[in-house]
Amino acid sequence: MKKAGLLTNYGLYTDFYELTMAQAYYYNGMHEKKAVFDYFFRSMPCGNGYVVFAGLSDLLHALESFIYSEEELDYLERLGFKPAFLSYLQNFKFRGEIIAPREGEIIFNNEPVVTVRGSIIETQLIESLLLNFLNFQSLIATRASRIESVLQPHQSFMDFGLRRAQGWASLHASRAAVIGGAIGTSNTEAARRYHLQAIGTMAHSWIQAFDDELQAFRAYVQVYPDKATLLVDTYDTLKSGVPNAIQVAKELEREGYKLHAIRIDSGDMAFLSRQARRMLDEAGLKYVKIIASNSLDEFLIRSLNLQKAQLDGFGVGTKLAVSKGCPALDGVYKLAWFDGQPRLKISEDIAKISLPGNKELYRIYDDKNMFYRDAIILEGEKIDEVDIIYHPDYAFKNTAIKNLKYEKLRHPVMRNGKILNIEEDVHRISEFRKKRLKRVPEETKRFENPHIYKVGISKKLFDLRQTLIQKFLSK
Amino acid sequence: MKKAGLLTNYGLYTDFYELTMAQAYYYNGMHEKKAVFDYFFRSMPCGNGYVVFAGLSDLLHALESFIYSEEELDYLERLGFKPAFLSYLQNFKFRGEIIAPREGEIIFNNEPVVTVRGSIIETQLIESLLLNFLNFQSLIATRASRIESVLQPHQSFMDFGLRRAQGWASLHASRAAVIGGAIGTSNTEAARRYHLQAIGTMAHSWIQAFDDELQAFRAYVQVYPDKATLLVDTYDTLKSGVPNAIQVAKELEREGYKLHAIRIDSGDMAFLSRQARRMLDEAGLKYVKIIASNSLDEFLIRSLNLQKAQLDGFGVGTKLAVSKGCPALDGVYKLAWFDGQPRLKISEDIAKISLPGNKELYRIYDDKNMFYRDAIILEGEKIDEVDIIYHPDYAFKNTAIKNLKYEKLRHPVMRNGKILNIEEDVHRISEFRKKRLKRVPEETKRFENPHIYKVGISKKLFDLRQTLIQKFLSK
Repeated sequence: MKKAGLLTNYGLYTDFYELTMAQAYYYNGMHEKKAVFDYFFRSMPCGNGYVVFAGLSDLLHALESFIYSEEELDYLERLGFKPAFLSYLQNFKFRGEIIAPREGEIIFNNEPVVTVRGSIIETQLIESLLLNFLNFQSLIATRASRIESVLQPHQSFMDFGLRRAQGWASLHASRAAVIGGAIGTSNTEAARRYHLQAIGTMAHSWIQAFDDELQAFRAYVQVYPDKATLLVDTYDTLKSGVPNAIQVAKELEREGYKLHAIRIDSGDMAFLSRQARRMLDEAGLKYVKIIASNSLDEFLIRSLNLQKAQLDGFGVGTKLAVSKGCPALDGVYKLAWFDGQPRLKISEDIAKISLPGNKELYRIYDDKNMFYRDAIILEGEKIDEVDIIYHPDYAFKNTAIKNLKYEKLRHPVMRNGKILNIEEDVHRISEFRKKRLKRVPEETKRFENPHIYKVGISKKLFDLRQTLIQKFLSK
Repeated sequence: MKKAGLLTNYGLYTDFYELTMAQAYYYNGMHEKKAVFDYFFRSMPCGNGYVVFAGLSDLLHALESFIYSEEELDYLERLGFKPAFLSYLQNFKFRGEIIAPREGEIIFNNEPVVTVRGSIIETQLIESLLLNFLNFQSLIATRASRIESVLQPHQSFMDFGLRRAQGWASLHASRAAVIGGAIGTSNTEAARRYHLQAIGTMAHSWIQAFDDELQAFRAYVQVYPDKATLLVDTYDTLKSGVPNAIQVAKELEREGYKLHAIRIDSGDMAFLSRQARRMLDEAGLKYVKIIASNSLDEFLIRSLNLQKAQLDGFGVGTKLAVSKGCPALDGVYKLAWFDGQPRLKISEDIAKISLPGNKELYRIYDDKNMFYRDAIILEGEKIDEVDIIYHPDYAFKNTAIKNLKYEKLRHPVMRNGKILNIEEDVHRISEFRKKRLKRVPEETKRFENPHIYKVGISKKLFDLRQTLIQKFLSK
């Protein structure tokens, strides 16, 4: 497995301004000065109450390949970058430190999810790559988790998004979908690359290639007697597809095989699935599952379940793979500390003023072991000594966290540019997500208009931020 | 340049069911039978009246790499694919024919945009790849073309979408954005790969890394005296950013240089740009351009222009790169002909019943040389002999096209699996799009609720479709 993914070298997978700034830092003699950047997002996608953190392992592998070979350097030279800077890039490698939660962790807005520490040049150059990888996979894992949340215990869903996915995004989408709860994917390359279950059987074209449907079903199960899912809606689901599937299932039984499932890809899935279930049951085929596909998302699946559709599985395509309705996570990457000083990003919009300084993130638990608050403190502070946390803008909004159980949410995952011990197995990452989700309060997991989970900051961080704001205003 | 793009081998970049069907065709002895598939879409994205065809060149290069090396074959073997089929795949290469319009062509819904001819196994296996590449690039090129349509003559826009793009989709997105009218991109790797203009100067972090804004501006123009765009909204656009930029521009003038532009990334861009323009003009800096960024799309740009914002350029990010609001094009790939017979895909929804047979697509011009109708006829028919074209479902809706000028819209672009002479230069493709757009009637280009451009079929195709529908109904 090519660990770094699709590109060989990632040095140019960056916004051009990162490179022009890098060269300017270099010629201003500032490039080795130390910097700290935070990755965070301001709002959660799809109106959801939480985000599933995903994309870390792909990011770290890409960072190991964030280098410039002759091909990239030649290109930059043609664009006018200067010799000394190009020589610098020739030996460039990300050698910084990255602090992050485990993949699959449940995270919230306005907290430093990932912190990057290193020279200003290396922390700056990787900005676009980091945002590009983490924003997208976290988005899709979150969307998948919403879909999982509406399933009944016996139901499962699969990623069928390759054909409408945004080009090469399909590979990351499939991985993130499984982190968020999909049992597998139709995308064979993603399945190979990330060790996911590859899923799929037949398209309408298979049926069309035969003179009749029954013949098409027979020809297929002859090759796959033990794992066929027959597509039953090519001509008429209830008059032709289901009766033919029943006939083939009976023929298979006589040879000692069991038909796995039928798939319905059009029409009213509540009505058709109830009828099909009844027909299958009456034929003694209770074991044959019914799978649905066609423009599904969490809303439609919930609605079908409310109408007692008889469905065992869902193939979810476009709406998951591109996260239709909310196709981007608004994660940003802001300078928090540089050259010995905490730094602030001022904004006209108060809520957009950043959190300065080198920070740590803790999760606080209530007495039932549920997530209660997240707390951001300054490096050097001890969480045991932080009794109260505050809303970043309004000191009167605060919460006592004294004597509550806590947990450090982030740990170094890369040091000196080397990947440390991280979990890369997608299924274990998904299991971890499931375990963590159990500790999210029900009201925060609510499908619509969830209760906002509170993230607070220590008094020291509050004061530092206010001091820097005042210092700016007095200029 | 690695022509095939990011993956070395594309054989597994396919929905798993294409592979299970391929094996089933193989063991049923049907795999060498000839098939014809059409790529088309049923509705146009973003409520637009046309689609810009894009993604062809990337698709064809990927098809040349649609092979299975040992790594992919090992994987398939582990999944249970059988030895004889795996041996077949070992020598597999797409050797079929592809008929397509030029990239940048203006196309419409329900017409066969691309037709693929070859053995059933090869035409089937490439389905997912074809849909994945063409759907996405055509979507983004169309969205970019909408953005271009609201610009004033002196304005331009750039793709700034890398950080929120859907992972690796960013590369195709940047290419398609330029096809659709962007003058360049911030995505350096996309710029290198597709010979696009790389654009960008500085982020807020550059300003934050200095004690004050003026010092930050000076340090930057020292390295880029002739091409700096100064970001003026870090602290206060009108009280700090613009005055500092003016001071630096004056200093540059004394050294014989001209400041290129300022960029506003927050606040009310109509108000701020008018004020900034006045301040720059009064300082004798009429040549300094004003660039805007921050959540822009065609609606906001149109609105800013209506309010007489003084803007010369727009950095368009997320909303273009993911096509927010309409993040997928619903292109499909349907079997039209197999083993000597035209094939039909029946559907409960009449409008979804496909067009059978091996077809040709013509564009008909009116007497002003504007696009008038598109006409689909059967292979073997002569367009000169087609006097009237019909709505596919209602014969009473028809149009005379006799004696009108016409043009064959599609030509072979791949034959025996080899790429024929196609235009690959993104800028020439974009020029072609612009030229073609001039021939689209104004009402079809309308931004909202456009007039629907009519696509009709010949009487022979109409009759063939009706015969096949009747034949199905009588079963």
